[in-house]
Amino acid sequence: MKTTQIRLAARPVGEPKDTDFEFVTAELPNLTDGQVLLRTIYLSLDPYMRGRMSEAKSYAAPVELGDVMVGQTVCEVLESRSPKRQPGDLVLAYTGWQTHAVADARHTRRVDPDAAPASTALGVLGMPGFTAYAGLLAIGAPQPGETVAVAAATGPVGSAVGQIAKVKGARAVGIAGGPTKCRALLEEFGFDAAVDHRSPTFREDLAAATPDGIDVYFENVGGQVAAEVTRRLNKFARIPVCGLVAEYNATEPPAGPDRLPTFMRRVLSLSLTVRGFIQDEFIPTHHEDFLREMSGWVRDGSVRYREDVVDGLEQTLEAFRGLLAGRNFGKLLVRVGVDA
Amino acid sequence: MKTTQIRLAARPVGEPKDTDFEFVTAELPNLTDGQVLLRTIYLSLDPYMRGRMSEAKSYAAPVELGDVMVGQTVCEVLESRSPKRQPGDLVLAYTGWQTHAVADARHTRRVDPDAAPASTALGVLGMPGFTAYAGLLAIGAPQPGETVAVAAATGPVGSAVGQIAKVKGARAVGIAGGPTKCRALLEEFGFDAAVDHRSPTFREDLAAATPDGIDVYFENVGGQVAAEVTRRLNKFARIPVCGLVAEYNATEPPAGPDRLPTFMRRVLSLSLTVRGFIQDEFIPTHHEDFLREMSGWVRDGSVRYREDVVDGLEQTLEAFRGLLAGRNFGKLLVRVGVDA
Repeated sequence: MKTTQIRLAARPVGEPKDTDFEFVTAELPNLTDGQVLLRTIYLSLDPYMRGRMSEAKSYAAPVELGDVMVGQTVCEVLESRSPKRQPGDLVLAYTGWQTHAVADARHTRRVDPDAAPASTALGVLGMPGFTAYAGLLAIGAPQPGETVAVAAATGPVGSAVGQIAKVKGARAVGIAGGPTKCRALLEEFGFDAAVDHRSPTFREDLAAATPDGIDVYFENVGGQVAAEVTRRLNKFARIPVCGLVAEYNATEPPAGPDRLPTFMRRVLSLSLTVRGFIQDEFIPTHHEDFLREMSGWVRDGSVRYREDVVDGLEQTLEAFRGLLAGRNFGKLLVRVGVDA
Repeated sequence: MKTTQIRLAARPVGEPKDTDFEFVTAELPNLTDGQVLLRTIYLSLDPYMRGRMSEAKSYAAPVELGDVMVGQTVCEVLESRSPKRQPGDLVLAYTGWQTHAVADARHTRRVDPDAAPASTALGVLGMPGFTAYAGLLAIGAPQPGETVAVAAATGPVGSAVGQIAKVKGARAVGIAGGPTKCRALLEEFGFDAAVDHRSPTFREDLAAATPDGIDVYFENVGGQVAAEVTRRLNKFARIPVCGLVAEYNATEPPAGPDRLPTFMRRVLSLSLTVRGFIQDEFIPTHHEDFLREMSGWVRDGSVRYREDVVDGLEQTLEAFRGLLAGRNFGKLLVRVGVDA
């Protein structure tokens, strides 16, 4: 069995270029005991992947040059040498940017397409949904009546953050780029307010949307949006930090002035809590509750989700660049193979 | 009865100048029911006072121009119209930079000079000691074997942080300016390591003193020391932020590059907790334990303290400038009147 792979060929400087990658068709090895042969149906594209392309110290090791780019996938089992998996099963796997793969069956998790569409295992019921759930509830801890702000708010993490905040009785303020996304925040995701960060009146609009200030800022973008939000924080505000997508392509520290001292003074004078996290940390304590609660909220319509699906592995790179630039609208997935 | 007061005459730009203040002798009003007439024995000088001189938004309102500078004091009761206080009592009060004052008896707390020297109510058993205790234990939460780093380590907060860390089984690394203070950290306060931030090899010395990295950085100085410490932080490190004394005289944001994005990336990649606090927040939950535990540690020698006493209210300004520049050595007190 052959697989078509996207391998990292060079470490991107700034925005990843086509020449930083190569498409390779390779022969897969024969299965050994405990392994499964997988056909990729959906590949998840996520901002953290930009970090894996770099050598800079991050929370996970970089992808080596010449290796297949990593990523979570929903796959169909084609052959199995494990009693745990049958051909035809759909599984969640971590097989990366390729059409087929051989994996250890223990590194896959069954996906039940009758409970929810299989793609949701990569989105609202998967890692992005869990990131929103764990970061908001374990760190942000919004109380009824408090204001929760989140940027990239139509994305899979942001939209879940706002909707879970609503479930918990908080006021949800979403920040997104452009009027179409802002409309979706209000009409599709039920946010209390939506603010367009591309508007020249962003600062004033944000102030008007947060008359009582901001108690929880779920940080997933950084950059100028974060700077403006910080001005609206209340005493004892909490800032779960799960991503800084606006900065992932940066090649050097921005010019001055140095904003760190001002930020730290605000941390002090407002008794802020700033807490970075990767969702893995909360799996032992929160994942079971997440699956139960979030499935319920999706079923009863409290939490809605949107997917942005591009067709064909060859679209992956352009789609990934769009993700970093905020051009996607909803959870970005590459449909690598046709769903059964 | 007359009082000599130091009033704020102008908002200092940068380091406070003599001309930003005026010495005034004023007549105190007669006592009304519930009030006491107080004679100041010790005035505490603390870095937070620099913030009160400015109009910038902080955790407390600024001192108004023309008003007496605020500050905690240990006073002798000269006259009382309250059944709660007798002439001759020593009390903790908040009467500021002056020789005498009239205060509501309910705003004073008795100090028992037989239990510990009265001055400790302003230091190791007072606000600085409680800042160390609450910030270290409630936020830093050091575990046995972890490494706790603190700067301004011979100061009243820093020296308590390191010694409490030792009581809790952690390794204490102190940062101070100059060999004399560093020697005191090892010989007087029992730190495991001392690093001189004025040394040209500070970075290397800090690395050598923290072979297992840093798990808790108790932040009370900011500036370049904080920048170097940040490079040594471990995953899941905690940073209680109680002060930024190195930056209090700054008149504008330092030039670039902008270090905030790099700092936030570290927050993310190391899952750091950065938490600003003012000790008041923890009074309901921790103050009773503090008084009991800390008194015990002072009595049994687990926690030692050092005081830097200057004589006479007229020395206040020069002593305060020295405090901001790190020229004091131990808890800085002005002996305004002679102890009974």
